[in-house]
Amino acid sequence: MNVFPSCTLCNRIYMDYNATTPLEPEVIQAITEALKDAWGNPSSSYIAGAKAKAIINQSRENVARMVGGAAEDIIFTSGGTEANNLVLHTAVEHFRRTRRAAEQGEGHQNGCTDLPHIITSNVEHDSVKLAAEQLQRDDVTFVPVSKVTARVEVEDVIAVVRPNTCLISIMLANNETGVIMPVQEICQRINSLNKQRERLRILLHTDAAQALGKVRVDACELGIDYLTIVGHKFYAPRIGALYVNGPGTRTPLYAMLFGGGQERNFRPGTENTPMIAGLGKAAELVTSNLSDYESHMRSTKLYLEERLQAIFKDKIHFNSHYPGSDILPNTCNMSILGPTLQGGAVCKLQRVLSSCRRLLASVGAACHSGSGNRPSHILLSCGVPTQVAANALRLSVGRGTTKEDVDAVVEDLRETVQLLEEMN
Amino acid sequence: MNVFPSCTLCNRIYMDYNATTPLEPEVIQAITEALKDAWGNPSSSYIAGAKAKAIINQSRENVARMVGGAAEDIIFTSGGTEANNLVLHTAVEHFRRTRRAAEQGEGHQNGCTDLPHIITSNVEHDSVKLAAEQLQRDDVTFVPVSKVTARVEVEDVIAVVRPNTCLISIMLANNETGVIMPVQEICQRINSLNKQRERLRILLHTDAAQALGKVRVDACELGIDYLTIVGHKFYAPRIGALYVNGPGTRTPLYAMLFGGGQERNFRPGTENTPMIAGLGKAAELVTSNLSDYESHMRSTKLYLEERLQAIFKDKIHFNSHYPGSDILPNTCNMSILGPTLQGGAVCKLQRVLSSCRRLLASVGAACHSGSGNRPSHILLSCGVPTQVAANALRLSVGRGTTKEDVDAVVEDLRETVQLLEEMN
Repeated sequence: MNVFPSCTLCNRIYMDYNATTPLEPEVIQAITEALKDAWGNPSSSYIAGAKAKAIINQSRENVARMVGGAAEDIIFTSGGTEANNLVLHTAVEHFRRTRRAAEQGEGHQNGCTDLPHIITSNVEHDSVKLAAEQLQRDDVTFVPVSKVTARVEVEDVIAVVRPNTCLISIMLANNETGVIMPVQEICQRINSLNKQRERLRILLHTDAAQALGKVRVDACELGIDYLTIVGHKFYAPRIGALYVNGPGTRTPLYAMLFGGGQERNFRPGTENTPMIAGLGKAAELVTSNLSDYESHMRSTKLYLEERLQAIFKDKIHFNSHYPGSDILPNTCNMSILGPTLQGGAVCKLQRVLSSCRRLLASVGAACHSGSGNRPSHILLSCGVPTQVAANALRLSVGRGTTKEDVDAVVEDLRETVQLLEEMN
Repeated sequence: MNVFPSCTLCNRIYMDYNATTPLEPEVIQAITEALKDAWGNPSSSYIAGAKAKAIINQSRENVARMVGGAAEDIIFTSGGTEANNLVLHTAVEHFRRTRRAAEQGEGHQNGCTDLPHIITSNVEHDSVKLAAEQLQRDDVTFVPVSKVTARVEVEDVIAVVRPNTCLISIMLANNETGVIMPVQEICQRINSLNKQRERLRILLHTDAAQALGKVRVDACELGIDYLTIVGHKFYAPRIGALYVNGPGTRTPLYAMLFGGGQERNFRPGTENTPMIAGLGKAAELVTSNLSDYESHMRSTKLYLEERLQAIFKDKIHFNSHYPGSDILPNTCNMSILGPTLQGGAVCKLQRVLSSCRRLLASVGAACHSGSGNRPSHILLSCGVPTQVAANALRLSVGRGTTKEDVDAVVEDLRETVQLLEEMN
């Protein structure tokens, strides 16, 4: 039974694993041991420092292995927000330096006009969207996802490439719909383009926050330059890392912070050894057990969708079903439509959620929980009608979610919806 | 007995508390509990999120109380490096915005010339020094500390103020010498100047990394705008915070990162709840017990200096004694001079350190441990002769260091120095 680890929440069933995950017991143990035994400063030359440094090195290898990279490709960060911002910062800085070098006659003009151009999608996390807008207010293209497939389509990306395009940043999987984006195909096309054109290299980034720990992720196969790793989405603590394909050599990386030289000066600051130890342990678990995790989550989600369909019949609409698109194995996004759908009346799922006795889930991204009852702009972008999107509920299952949990949650939803309908 | 918490290090005595500190058991407990029970996303609207949010709010209050501020003055960061960089970034951004507003006729010219001017000292941590150089390569004044007092003298700071000065950043206490800087006096003078002149307000920052948990720190008494808080220097985990006197209202603060809106958009990214819980607990301990900590460390350090003096007599030179300057209660910096000092020969303390059976200490800042045998530029700046500085050893004691530890360390040093002298 997927009981909430906290005593006060024992009767609740958590189905918001896309918002955050609990920590695996082995991860907690790795953190706790490091808190007690590896508190030395990793830069200190004596044994206490060496022990901390060894733990960090081991974690770096584990994280690298999880994403198919080498240890030196991993830069630890405070989280996904920092990793994403670091990539955007780097792309703009790289453009400026390249342009400066060109102006000084040290290179070709390389198609560098005044402003760097960034391509991203209209369903990215705010740490990509807002960072792009902030850095390059007037020259960002937000490629809309298809209203049929909910994916960023490769041709739509290629079509907006310009001579001054310096970065393409497309998430690997969307947090609300679970839709997996064709990042590998985009990389193939752009890498070919990069070889052909005597112009500024277009850097390639994917935010893999929602994909890691759920589907196989291999940075080399993807052909990506940068890949964002977020611990708390795969049962690891609240730090992150950035995979960079040869940072400072094959791929540019420019620090946002300056200080004591840690992380080869790409990200200085005394290392958070215990959290890094936890991240490494969680990465090791993903590498070892991914196929088990994935197949368990997939079968649990399928069972959930079957049960929901059986109970709510034609009143249910799945916002995570799109023809031809692959979906994360754990993500179910659905709306329950009211008895008088034709007239536009629908059950307010926000109200359903707060009335459920056992279910803990969300109507969308946790960091937008303050935005009230406005329908998710992500779902609207994916072609979900406004009235349906306004009632979306995201159920994301985890490694420990059972069929009994699903039964209990579906029953909980059935009772709650019935009660609310009777009250109307 | 101040045994190193790790079993493999049981016979060693740690005297490098300025590099980092172990975590208090109560702090480890607060972190572990939060890892297990408060892993919910603080932005989630249900109970798991609310629990995490409550812990974060409590920690914010505890950290604020430690530095004499209000809860809303505290912005959690990934550490001191980020906090320092955030201040430097803000000052330059504030200058630019003020200048832009002035150019658009919305304000006075305010003495804003082309470049913002930053004043700092020549003994700051690299996260201030390098960030200042990076942001404003050509207009940073590094005020030299007095070679008599090892302090930044108030008049020296005032003398270099210009119409385009936007920030003064002076550390509260130096990590190598332990010298406490006259930050309060500098603030008084600059705050008066700010009232008088119809020009750009000069922002005031102090990096309190080494002072917190050792001496009383009150941001209001200091009259400071920004104060950097570094957890792992006061038995807390590896995160930090920035005190800002009314962020975004009384005092400008401009984010370096963009994302999901956490920390009122000043520092987005899903909150590191367990580490924040630990920081809050450690701050609570400092608020409750500071006078005990301080008097214990002071008496232990005095005993250490007495014993060193008694054993090494005229061969010892204290690099942490300066006429008229207050020194951190826990910091002893000393050089042991060789028998043939007149000829310039001295015992290589780096070699002494690695030969000691029990002592764990450092020759200077941990983040400079890779810089080899070059004498500390900090000590040279303080007027310590090159040959003496080249042999400096920093012994920094902690809350649990005992007189028995001191006796053992001094005996360890005596034996090692004797052995090395005999080998010569």
